[in-house]
Amino acid sequence: MSDVTFDVLVEVKHRPGIADPQGATIERSLPTLGFHGVSGVTVGKSIRFTVEATDEAAARGEVEEMCKRFLTNPVIEDAVITIS
Amino acid sequence: MSDVTFDVLVEVKHRPGIADPQGATIERSLPTLGFHGVSGVTVGKSIRFTVEATDEAAARGEVEEMCKRFLTNPVIEDAVITIS
Repeated sequence: MSDVTFDVLVEVKHRPGIADPQGATIERSLPTLGFHGVSGVTVGKSIRFTVEATDEAAARGEVEEMCKRFLTNPVIEDAVITIS
Repeated sequence: MSDVTFDVLVEVKHRPGIADPQGATIERSLPTLGFHGVSGVTVGKSIRFTVEATDEAAARGEVEEMCKRFLTNPVIEDAVITIS
């Protein structure tokens, strides 16, 4: 069975309740630069790559396993996986 | 005119040709953990927030200005703005 290539985006965010000092700093700084009305700033990581798998379900399974073991710290981070 | 709230995602990526050591390290490490077929790994930032503006065009204009002045380093980074 030949493998297909999938484009993957993994967005890694802090879990709710985990401090996000980068986001807090941006939010505090924007008004002093003249930008108003911005709230709820969070900063995460976006990891993009391509993966070879037999189908989309297999690709998602492999990426979920990668997230758990390597790409995220599941104690403080959540991952949202988008496959296209 | 009353303001509307927009959800914004800014994805900050290295510009083409700029070294991405985080991505290179992930790509090199995955095979040793048993994950094969992964290539083209890039690591960027995902910044999410809400912004108040009169309409979507105004929101996009403000976010583009924020990216240029504050959220990205335009010499080495590109930003992709998604507004919903």
